[in-house]
Amino acid sequence: MSELRTVEWVGGHVRLIDQTRLPDRLVYVNLKDYRQVSKAIEDMVVRGAPAIGVAAAMGMALAARANRNKSRERVLQQLEVAAKSLRASRPTAQNLFWAVERILQVAHEASPNGDVANLVVEEAMRMAEEDVQANLSMGRYGADLLADGDQVLTHCNTGTLATVSFGTALAPMRTAVRQGKRVTVVATETRPRLQGAKLTTYELMSDKIPVMLIVDGAAGYVIRKGMVQKVIVGADRITRRYVANKVGTYLIALAAQASNVPFYVAAPSSTFDLRREGSDIEIEERDAKEVTHINGKRIPARGVPVYNPAFDITPVELVKSFITEKGVFSADALTAEPARIQG
Amino acid sequence: MSELRTVEWVGGHVRLIDQTRLPDRLVYVNLKDYRQVSKAIEDMVVRGAPAIGVAAAMGMALAARANRNKSRERVLQQLEVAAKSLRASRPTAQNLFWAVERILQVAHEASPNGDVANLVVEEAMRMAEEDVQANLSMGRYGADLLADGDQVLTHCNTGTLATVSFGTALAPMRTAVRQGKRVTVVATETRPRLQGAKLTTYELMSDKIPVMLIVDGAAGYVIRKGMVQKVIVGADRITRRYVANKVGTYLIALAAQASNVPFYVAAPSSTFDLRREGSDIEIEERDAKEVTHINGKRIPARGVPVYNPAFDITPVELVKSFITEKGVFSADALTAEPARIQG
Repeated sequence: MSELRTVEWVGGHVRLIDQTRLPDRLVYVNLKDYRQVSKAIEDMVVRGAPAIGVAAAMGMALAARANRNKSRERVLQQLEVAAKSLRASRPTAQNLFWAVERILQVAHEASPNGDVANLVVEEAMRMAEEDVQANLSMGRYGADLLADGDQVLTHCNTGTLATVSFGTALAPMRTAVRQGKRVTVVATETRPRLQGAKLTTYELMSDKIPVMLIVDGAAGYVIRKGMVQKVIVGADRITRRYVANKVGTYLIALAAQASNVPFYVAAPSSTFDLRREGSDIEIEERDAKEVTHINGKRIPARGVPVYNPAFDITPVELVKSFITEKGVFSADALTAEPARIQG
Repeated sequence: MSELRTVEWVGGHVRLIDQTRLPDRLVYVNLKDYRQVSKAIEDMVVRGAPAIGVAAAMGMALAARANRNKSRERVLQQLEVAAKSLRASRPTAQNLFWAVERILQVAHEASPNGDVANLVVEEAMRMAEEDVQANLSMGRYGADLLADGDQVLTHCNTGTLATVSFGTALAPMRTAVRQGKRVTVVATETRPRLQGAKLTTYELMSDKIPVMLIVDGAAGYVIRKGMVQKVIVGADRITRRYVANKVGTYLIALAAQASNVPFYVAAPSSTFDLRREGSDIEIEERDAKEVTHINGKRIPARGVPVYNPAFDITPVELVKSFITEKGVFSADALTAEPARIQG
């Protein structure tokens, strides 16, 4: 599983694993247009902040390629149009904004006679490669924090399927197991979309890493009972004071604090947004149907009002350390040395 | 909805609302034997600690009636057999043990020439009536804690369907609305069995009390965002130091504390178990299928290990007050004056 590629540039197209079909079927989709990429991000065919970032970069590459015979100005103009569409697809994921900016910058900095389309495609492919390398690096730094015999609780899916490959918050467990440590995982199911139940258990079972599934509400009991020694989660955006991550993360952080269990956040530098304090992070609200319908069947009585925030906010004071590809940082470092993390 | 009867003694039988069929159908089942009552409790056809208590008392009444022409010794012996079966059906619910004890005591204290079966039936019917009165009383005490305009978060189902009628933790909201206060409710869906989504929203919509449904993981975000002014939950067992209630309650209590939102527990005196400190409360573990299957359809990959505790433990320090039919008590009162609460 950790060898699969969630997002890939193949033959001038973007190839994605369709995550809405897992765990029952491993299906790939080929996208030929940036609008299809925006739609795939919005519909969570591809999800996970790092995977979204790389998918968006490749969406930009599709837009550049579609205009490769046009004038430089025309290409840049079309890239701005694609950027707008892609940014709107999932407003909370920092990696999405970061990826789109990076592509725009490469395009704008291209020499007047340069092949903008080609440069953009190359940059998107480089970003995919960097993502894998960052995850392997996070795995090494994170594994150092895990002891033989540790059971680690995680939330949502932060594995191969949330990245190009290998994962963010699952990377330390994967690396520790490869190093010969006996490490096991408790996965929360992660309502409403059940990424923990559908994706995390699937990945870990494929890699033969022992995993136990719980409902989200059981995380507090499991932590309080001493069943886990560490918590590691991913992030969609990290500002100087707050972590935005899958809804439910904040409750787990509170429970970890109450039981003195270290709570770690694993994320690549592209997830950090340290120019902002972050009290104004936009939290995406998604369709009520994600809550009211499971497998197409309605659960509550018809017409019940629903509030469905996709993410929540965890103050950085609850985070013991941030695991990044550049090393392990305390919450203080977010303010004290942002350039070391994000730069 | 609040006028319905969840558990009733009708024509020598126990009539229950089949809660596994809601909200799609309101179906009643008639039980003629205590074993059917045990099974109905175990399968959660009837659930909610107070409703379970009364159902168990009526199960005892069925056992007494089935032996009404036998000797006194034979009736008492058969009641012990029924008691054993009923107690085993849901080990965490204090009301179940309380109800069975109360019936046994009445039977044992009956005069040698008394009609034990009749006394037991009468006692069970009295307990049903007392439950409704206790709930109305909790409603009055609890409503005094609610201000006009309050939005109250609750977990699981603690309404009519968790009791004989009217509810425990929903009683304050019902009473406040009857008093003319504008009170609204945030209901967590309550995985794995979705009692919040299926039952709480159904009850409140029937009573035209505004309700908004969220996933369990969103409770922290909703509380932190200032969207609720109070939290009120029920309980399955309250000892001197701990509250056992539906899994997920502890996380909500932590979030309420972190945001200085008052966290109340509403429960009748029959839920209190104040002879015990409670660090050894037995937490029922239920079938993995409750987590892996929704509406009969499997969610995760086949064979994933599951841990499914039905309840969790909240330290009483996180509870601002206990709302009972005898008044409102602080956590200190559980130790300082147990007789006033439980006696």
